[in-house]
Order: sequence, then C-alpha cells, then structure tokens
Amino acid sequence: MSKSLEDYEKLQELGKEIRTLSGVAMLLEWDQETYMPKGGITSRSEQVELISFLIHEKKTSATFKKALEKLIDLESGELKGEDLSNRKKRSVEEFYGEYIKDAKLPADFVKKLAKANSKGTHAWQKAREENSFEAFLPYLENIVTLNQQKAAYLGFKDHPYDALLDLYEPGVTTQELDTLFGTLKPFLTDLTKKLAAKKKVSTAFLTAQFPRDKQMEFCHFLLDKMKLDPEKFRLDFSTHPFCTAPHPHDVRLTTHTSSSGFFKNISAVMHEGGHALYELGLPVEDFGTPLAEYCTMGIHESQSRWWECFIGQGRPFWEFAYPKLLEIFPEQLQGITLDHFYQAINQVEPSLIRVFADEVTYILHIILRYEIEKEFIAGTLNLADLPHIWNEKMENSLGVTPDTDMNGCLQDVHWSCGLIGYFPTYALGNIYASQFFDTFQKTFPDWEMRTTNGDLAFIRHFLLEKVHRHGREFPALTLIERATGAPLSPQPYMDYLTKKYSQ
Amino acid sequence: MSKSLEDYEKLQELGKEIRTLSGVAMLLEWDQETYMPKGGITSRSEQVELISFLIHEKKTSATFKKALEKLIDLESGELKGEDLSNRKKRSVEEFYGEYIKDAKLPADFVKKLAKANSKGTHAWQKAREENSFEAFLPYLENIVTLNQQKAAYLGFKDHPYDALLDLYEPGVTTQELDTLFGTLKPFLTDLTKKLAAKKKVSTAFLTAQFPRDKQMEFCHFLLDKMKLDPEKFRLDFSTHPFCTAPHPHDVRLTTHTSSSGFFKNISAVMHEGGHALYELGLPVEDFGTPLAEYCTMGIHESQSRWWECFIGQGRPFWEFAYPKLLEIFPEQLQGITLDHFYQAINQVEPSLIRVFADEVTYILHIILRYEIEKEFIAGTLNLADLPHIWNEKMENSLGVTPDTDMNGCLQDVHWSCGLIGYFPTYALGNIYASQFFDTFQKTFPDWEMRTTNGDLAFIRHFLLEKVHRHGREFPALTLIERATGAPLSPQPYMDYLTKKYSQ
Ligand SMILES: [Zn+2]
Ligand SMILES: [Zn+2]
Repeated sequence: MSKSLEDYEKLQELGKEIRTLSGVAMLLEWDQETYMPKGGITSRSEQVELISFLIHEKKTSATFKKALEKLIDLESGELKGEDLSNRKKRSVEEFYGEYIKDAKLPADFVKKLAKANSKGTHAWQKAREENSFEAFLPYLENIVTLNQQKAAYLGFKDHPYDALLDLYEPGVTTQELDTLFGTLKPFLTDLTKKLAAKKKVSTAFLTAQFPRDKQMEFCHFLLDKMKLDPEKFRLDFSTHPFCTAPHPHDVRLTTHTSSSGFFKNISAVMHEGGHALYELGLPVEDFGTPLAEYCTMGIHESQSRWWECFIGQGRPFWEFAYPKLLEIFPEQLQGITLDHFYQAINQVEPSLIRVFADEVTYILHIILRYEIEKEFIAGTLNLADLPHIWNEKMENSLGVTPDTDMNGCLQDVHWSCGLIGYFPTYALGNIYASQFFDTFQKTFPDWEMRTTNGDLAFIRHFLLEKVHRHGREFPALTLIERATGAPLSPQPYMDYLTKKYSQ
Repeated sequence: MSKSLEDYEKLQELGKEIRTLSGVAMLLEWDQETYMPKGGITSRSEQVELISFLIHEKKTSATFKKALEKLIDLESGELKGEDLSNRKKRSVEEFYGEYIKDAKLPADFVKKLAKANSKGTHAWQKAREENSFEAFLPYLENIVTLNQQKAAYLGFKDHPYDALLDLYEPGVTTQELDTLFGTLKPFLTDLTKKLAAKKKVSTAFLTAQFPRDKQMEFCHFLLDKMKLDPEKFRLDFSTHPFCTAPHPHDVRLTTHTSSSGFFKNISAVMHEGGHALYELGLPVEDFGTPLAEYCTMGIHESQSRWWECFIGQGRPFWEFAYPKLLEIFPEQLQGITLDHFYQAINQVEPSLIRVFADEVTYILHIILRYEIEKEFIAGTLNLADLPHIWNEKMENSLGVTPDTDMNGCLQDVHWSCGLIGYFPTYALGNIYASQFFDTFQKTFPDWEMRTTNGDLAFIRHFLLEKVHRHGREFPALTLIERATGAPLSPQPYMDYLTKKYSQ
C-alpha cells in the first residue's frame, strides 16, 4: 500500500468515527419524533447536545488535523497525496473544505448560535399558535444578526448571502440564483395566472375518509415498487414527514396519516422514499468520507421531488397505480376516473402555504423567501416590516394575500431555527430534477410504456447511475453536467411545466 | 455553597455526561431489538462499540480522576468532603468503588473480554441450534479462563467467585450464598416432590388462541393499574422481553406475544413493569450519580419478581383482574373458574427450562448454575464434562434429565456472553422480594382486600418508599434491613411458599 493510501485510510478511519456519531445523533432525533415518550424530551436534548459536542470535538481535534495535513496543505489547500486516485483526491478536498468551514466558526459562536436557534424555535412555535409576529420579532432579530456574523466569519466574494448558501448548496451563488429565478419568476407567475383561470375538476374525493391502515398498505406497495430494500429501511409515523439515514444500510423514513388526507400521505411517502433511495444508493465502502455523503441539499431534494412530482404526479405512473388504488379504495374512489384523478392531483391554484403548493406555484413561494433572506443578510430590510413585505410579495407573485401571519411569514420553521440560505435548495431540487428528467426521457424513449406497465426499477437504476453512486465526488453543477450533458438551466423545468399543463 | 458541595456538583456533572452516554447506548440497544432494519446490525455494533469506548474513556479520564480526588483519597478510600450530607458521602464512596473497579481492569483486557463474549455468543447460538456442546466448548473454555483472570485482576478475600459476584451483587459473598442456598435447596427439593405428586388441574386453556391485540389491551390495563406514568414509558415488542432506562423519564419495556402464549405475555409485562417502576422511581435530581442508580441486580430483580409472582400470581390480584380478563376473552376462558385459573397459573412441576420454571423450582435451577459457576472459577471442573454434570445435578435436585443439551447446559445465553456470577442475582431477587413482601403484609393487614378492590397504587408507593427512592444510597443488605427490620434470611421465602402452596 502506498504511503498516501495509508494516510487516506487513516483519515477515513477518523471520518468514520465522526460519521458513526452523526448516525447516533440521527437515530436519537428519529426516536424523538417517532417513539420517545413525552417525558424523555429533556434528557433527549441533553443526549443530542452531548453527541453534537463530541462530533465537533473530533472534527476539530489535533488528531484529525494531523491526519488531514498529511494529504493536503492546510494553508494553500494544495494536495499532497499525488498518487491517490482522482476520487480519493476529491474526497480529500471535500474533507478539507468541511474542516476549513468548521475551523472558521469559533466554538463560542457555535454555542451561541445553537442557543439562539433553540430559543427561536420555541418562541416561533408559541408566536405561531398565538398568531403574534411581534412575539417572534426579537428572536428573529437575534437570529438574523447572528447569521450576518456567521457570513462574516465564513467569508465571501460578492454577496454575504453566498457564505450561507455555500453551507447547503456549495457551488451555487447568489448571482446564479438571481439569473435562474429572474427567468423563472415571470414565467411561473404567468403560467399560474393562466392555469388558475381554467375550469377545475372536483377534488372533494381527495378529502374523503380513507382508513389509515389501507393507506399504509398502498404506501408500502409503492415503496416496494420503488425498490427500497426492505432489509435496510423502515417507515414510521411522525408529525412532519422526514427521512434520515444513520447509515446507508439503516434508513428511516416517516410519514403522517390522517383519514382525510390520503394523497398528502402518498406524496410524503414518495418524497421521503426518493430521499431514502439516495441514501440507500450511496457507496457504502466509502462510509466515513465525503464520497459516501449526499452531494448537496438541492441534489437531495431533486431525488425526492423526482419521485413525488415527476413520477408520482405523472400520468404513466397512475396508469399503472390507479387500478391498485381502486382495488384498495373501491368506495372512496367510486365514479372517479383516472382522468379525473390525474387532474385533481395536478390542480394548479395559488395558495398561501408553501408545503401544500402545487408544482407550478411552489418555486414562487421559494423565490419570495429568497428575496427576503437576501435582504435579511444585507441588512436592508426593517424586520418589523416583514409581515407587510411578505403579504405584498404574495399578492404580487401569487395574487393572494395571507389573512393572518400564521398563514404568512410565520408559516415556516426555518428562520426560527437559524436556517437562512436553505430555502433555495428546495427550488434547485425541482430545477435539477427537471434537467435529470429531460435526459431520462431521452435515454428511455419508452419510459412511459414501461412505467405504465409497473416497471419502476429502471428509473431507480437511472438515478443510481447518474446521481446516487457518486456521493459527493462531484460538485452539484458538475454532477448535473456529467449526467445531462448540459450546464444548469431553467429551460427543462419550463418546458416540462409547459408541456404537462398544456395537455 | 461549600467547597465540598461545589466539588460534588462538578463530579455529578461529569457523572451526568457518562450516564447520558450510557442512556444513548441503551437506546441504541433498545432500537436494535425493536425497530432496527436487519441491515443496520453492522453499523449498530459499531455505534455501540464507539459509545462504550467513549464511556470508558470518560470514566478513566484524568479529569474524572481529579474531580474524584477532591472528595476522596484514591489510595486509602478516605473521604475528604466531611461537610457533605451522608447521602452525598455515600454517593462519593460509590463513585469511588466503581472507579477502582474500572481502573483494575487493563484496557487491553477489557477489549479481549468484549471480543471473547461477542464470539462466544455467536458460537453459542450456532451450537444451540445444532445441539452441539462440543462446538461451544472451546469458546466456553476461553470465557472461563478470562473470567478467572478477571477475578484475579479484581481481587478477593476468600473465594475468587466473590470478585465476580461483586460486579452484580456487591456486598453478597459466596459464603452468604452457600448458607442461603444450603438452607433452601433441601427445602425446595422436598416441596417440589410433594407438590409434583399432587393432582393437577387442566392447563390446556392457557395455550388456546388469544388474539394478540386483545392481549396487549389487557397488558396496558395492567401497566396503568401498576401506575406506570404513561408520559415516561413505552411498551414494544422484542424476541426476548426486557426493560431499559435511558433516563428515569424515558423507560422502555418490551414483551413478546404469541397467540398461544398469553400468560407468558402477562407475566413478562408485569415482570418488566416491575423493573420499569424501579427505574421510574429513582431520584432524578441525583441523575449522573450512583444515588440515581438501582442498588444491585438482585434488588432490581426483586422488583420485577414482586409484580410477576408475589402480586401477579397471587389470589387477591386475580380476584380483581380475572373479571376484566373474562370480559376481554369470554370465549377462551369459558367455563374456567377463578379457582381453576389460579391453580393453573401456579402449577408446580419440575421442568428442564429455567425461564419457564414455577416459583418453587426456579431457585433450584439457579442453585445448579451457581454450583457449576463456582467450580468454573475455582478451576475444579473439567469443562468437557459439563453436560454430564448438568444432567446429573438436574436429576438430583429436580428429578428430571434433559433429553438434549439444548434443553440442558446450552439453554442460557449468560455464560456465552461472559456473564459468570450473574445467576445468583435471580435467586436473590426472589429472596429479597419475599422479605419485602413479609413486611408489606404486616404493614398493610388489609392489603388483600385493597388489592381485590383493584387498588394497586399503595403497593407501588410502598416499594417507592422502601426501595426505589433510595437508589444506591445503601448497600443491598442494609437496604433490606432498613426496609424490613431484619437481616437477610431465607425464612420469609420458605414461609411464603409453604403458606401459598399448602392452601
Ligand atoms: Zn425533501
Ligand atoms: Zn428481570
């Protein structure tokens, strides 16, 4: 074994310890949302806090630094292990990138941040219940100030927002987003107006009573069809659906059921199932290194939106799945044709709440938040004016005005827990997915027929080849270019929507 | 605050970190037995191993040593914090006792032990399936040798077995057990013979089909009656029932159901419910110190056997609970009177398997193992002869001979995972419980009427006062003497059995 390879394996060993501890933290959080007795909450917070501290300690330890230093110059970022494979070189660079980011934030500041976020989340929950933006304002002010400081610590070239964006979607800049969103916003506003004016089908049947165990029978049928390995995942219930992966062989997804919200449940399961397939498809032999991690949050979201929207709200999929659904719910769906069903689940209608938005209006919700966040960080927005600005923007882009802040600027948890710079990844998820989908359609001209026949395995395989197995080997924009042969563009998304909604 | 109190709080802080990590390990193990997907097993082992390593690191760290040293002389064991309360002084002594034990075992040896135990468990599982003692023999030899070394490292006065016993039941010695078991063995052998000769009622109804969800309805009814706080525990399923407490406010118990084993399920739930009540009743304000830990394994088992046998196989309890049972299972229990039911669940019959043994023969199973273990450690038993010796002892004390080693010396997991010196705690559990029960009956002369009326809260309260709230403040034998006014004695147990089984 070459000296560099030995050094690399040593680094992976340390990375594995860190990733193993992260896996423990993920399991603790999963348990908290699924099975933990209420009384466990205080001790659970202490457990998570302690594990997080140990992770931080290991990430910034002298041992780790020494191991990393053998493979890369910490000052210049120049690689030392010249005889390593290109993959491993990229891995070292990613190790280094993370290390540098971690080292830039002083330990005291990280603690302060964690405290502000935890307090902010509690305050937000209360403020939301009471529909009182004023009660939340001081916490938001604190969080925004801390995020400005965070951006300063992390450093940036053009816009301080870039520093935050880089934490969730490295490689994408504010400038890039301005261009993307600049093209998409008028297009989507226009399309929304056109579609909202169209005649609607009745969607009343969607909120009929669908027994929860029958819903879950269908959900498990879907996950099975999507080819999630039954020995490596499980599906449980939580207030908000999520997916977490303590290890690529131990992936946990959750959904939420209510007897009158069966399609929300199906959407959630396909969405989280898409996230899960990504985690299940990461190269496990690289566990502990960035190569076995997801590329970016946006790429992760592209995988979930792929299954939720591009497949799961598509016609070929329901050609296949609707008969099964009818079989399970003959009464509830009596008289509802496939055509009717398909139109009902693809209704476009401007609405107040992001998480319930359709494919067309969704990104408009994100762009609104992005515009506001940029101003947060630039310091050009008087935070007390937020409700007013929010409502104005909603009116301008979606043509609706929130009745209350609860349904307006207080609807999302993100800002309250310090996540500024995160929202764009939701939009990027859709844009990435559409670009993959474009290539997918060209690669498999018969994809509709195959899907209609209930063969979804080849879809999973396509994503595995193009995305999953690469982990973090390539930056997001490179991954996309390699997978699709073209640089990032909003065009495929616009084409996809135009085609789908003109039918 | 006095200097000593400050030092004590610092020590508790460190103890809390250690106990928090133990809680994490417990949750990981709970998840492994209840919900983890099969594929997670390798990463789960790595998680548990890493957390265990971190615990060991913290327990033996210079920081911990320094904090402990401020309150006690590590050489002489003499207390320094003279102005501490007596409780806190005991706490420091217990901290010290554990520290000394941990320090006695070299880190390399602990690793070797862990490896041998893990290999031994796998080998035992296989050997048991194949009913091949020979396949297990080399692993057993290794484990016995390591336990002899362990005893030597730990040190002892009279018998090397004392050193191992001290790990699970500190304060009780081989001499003490010899006296106890010396009295009990002939008594129990005799009683067993007498009772086995008696006419039996039919127990066929116990293995009828009891739907599992209905069983669980009854189990939850019982736990509610036992006053387990519903916000601080949960009940799940696992292959083998167990109870674990990541925190006194987050207690997890499990049971096992099969449609034909409903009484085993009830017994398991009351048994684990008893363990759970102990953990729920520990003084949470002392979390992180020995004061918030269970006293010994034997005292823990006294709490589970109390509910499983002394209450849960008692007549007053079923006077109250049987009508409820009839309500849930009218068909399965049709024609079975309370009398019949009571006799069926208290049938005494010598049998091969410890875990299915009745109240009378149970301790004979333990004594057999104790006699063998002592010889393991003294080195006076040729391990290849184990099956032969086992069968001979079974014939002598219980009058039955195993047909296969699977039902003989290969039935228990304990030795395969290195637990030598643990079995006596099962017997002590029953003996302790009977002594508490004797006092309980004298304290509440109307206990039978109250129980018949369905009031179990006062029973829980009695145990809370006498046992739970003290944690590890007193050694087991002191706790018993304080609670009952008399030193440990086998007499109450003999009286209890004589009275119960002469009726
Ligand atoms: Zn998502
Ligand atoms: Zn027990």
